[in-house]
Amino acid sequence: MSLETVSTNRAFGGTQGVYKHASKATGTEMTFAVYVPDHAEGAKLPVLFYLSGLTCTHANVMEKGEYRAACAEHGVIFVCPDTSPRGDDVPDDEGYDFGKGAGFYVNATQEPWATHFQMRDYVENELPALIAANFPVDIERQGITGHSMGGHGALTISLRNPGRYKSTSAFAPIVSPLNCPWGEKALTGYIGADKAAWRAYDACALIADGARLPDLLVDQGTSDNFLEEQLKTHLLDEAVAAADMPATIRMQEGYDHSYYFISTFMADHVAWHAERLNA
Amino acid sequence: MSLETVSTNRAFGGTQGVYKHASKATGTEMTFAVYVPDHAEGAKLPVLFYLSGLTCTHANVMEKGEYRAACAEHGVIFVCPDTSPRGDDVPDDEGYDFGKGAGFYVNATQEPWATHFQMRDYVENELPALIAANFPVDIERQGITGHSMGGHGALTISLRNPGRYKSTSAFAPIVSPLNCPWGEKALTGYIGADKAAWRAYDACALIADGARLPDLLVDQGTSDNFLEEQLKTHLLDEAVAAADMPATIRMQEGYDHSYYFISTFMADHVAWHAERLNA
Repeated sequence: MSLETVSTNRAFGGTQGVYKHASKATGTEMTFAVYVPDHAEGAKLPVLFYLSGLTCTHANVMEKGEYRAACAEHGVIFVCPDTSPRGDDVPDDEGYDFGKGAGFYVNATQEPWATHFQMRDYVENELPALIAANFPVDIERQGITGHSMGGHGALTISLRNPGRYKSTSAFAPIVSPLNCPWGEKALTGYIGADKAAWRAYDACALIADGARLPDLLVDQGTSDNFLEEQLKTHLLDEAVAAADMPATIRMQEGYDHSYYFISTFMADHVAWHAERLNA
Repeated sequence: MSLETVSTNRAFGGTQGVYKHASKATGTEMTFAVYVPDHAEGAKLPVLFYLSGLTCTHANVMEKGEYRAACAEHGVIFVCPDTSPRGDDVPDDEGYDFGKGAGFYVNATQEPWATHFQMRDYVENELPALIAANFPVDIERQGITGHSMGGHGALTISLRNPGRYKSTSAFAPIVSPLNCPWGEKALTGYIGADKAAWRAYDACALIADGARLPDLLVDQGTSDNFLEEQLKTHLLDEAVAAADMPATIRMQEGYDHSYYFISTFMADHVAWHAERLNA
């Protein structure tokens, strides 16, 4: 599991790096970003994974997410994977919401996607091991967050792996792929028409089926163009209420789906994770 | 002086807007960004102008500059103009360091540049009047900053207009166009070979010729690839020392020329300006 350093930049008293490696899970080269605050020699820091939304690479949040000040303050390593396999031999779709840039954090079972679109395996297993082997992280202290499709990824990965993530949050997540057009298209395409199989990739269904988190933070803008048709935050409200699961789901007046929204609440999320990761 | 709103996004308890207008100074449409923190009805806020560097538009700092948290905290309006006129009828150069994206904040006198490349007039006169007429600013409380070519712009505009700017700072500025390849190319092209005319566009020459600022903050990364050949911070050190002009010029270990550097020190600069603008 060797890494190639693409770039490093000094930032906020730490190092913002970009790295690439040959991924076993996806069978492609994968690129990701890691921010490491300066720390005492030999120290191991907690790590927060951020899963990006549709159309994004590792670079969007790295450039616009404004996480470094808070990560430096709290001593948290911040990891930003890509949203899909890339490369000329990776199949794609004409839409922005399927194929490259839209891996949906699933293990595809349908052709031609199954060969490379194994983003669940990549983010759940390969990447954390790679991070643990190559960066000064205490892998017992992992948190996970994400935006939109990446919020869906964060919620479902954490719900499927009880106890692995000490903290879970999301920005404007897709809360139920079973109940929105983005989810219908992606899950039909990647894992087929049998909706029983979709439940492992649906935060609301996972909660209804018994999965629990000790705590959860979600921010959602009220002026988000995707709220009504795709994100449907109210379904998560209903799911956690029915399950009596602790969750803080905040509707943020006037905010949209952009990085202007994400960056506004990023420091809050990093602090929230740090409190749990450093507990 | 009517404005057209291109976009607005809620961010950090304020509004990040992008606007365009027909500029008299440049004879083109000009686009700029303004961040306005929420404020009491009828309040007038201080304003900080940020001049960008080579190749940038208004968007680079808007996306990567991380100024909104500090501006919201201190109640400062932040204005980001473009770096040159744009459009099909605007002449350009093959290099990234001349023509479009490289106006150098001068009034060009040489053809074919003179018609549109009047960025000094635009930034010194037209834009502040436009901002004063359309945003809740107290135009008596203006500060100015910028990066690289924009740091040059901020320093020279402030030095040429004593008393107008209550605060002046720069990130990795070109301190002496008379003494670097970027300056040689741009000033020869825009205003001709007579170097006497260049002194109005050279911070070190302006100081040597008697211009003074009450105070100045400059940050410069020690790992900046352009430091030795183009930026030459030591010339500014020498100029302010010879003039006995107060200035805080900080060499920042390991930082480069990128927005990772700028964003790291942005909150410091905004706070420094706010202290003087709110005094």
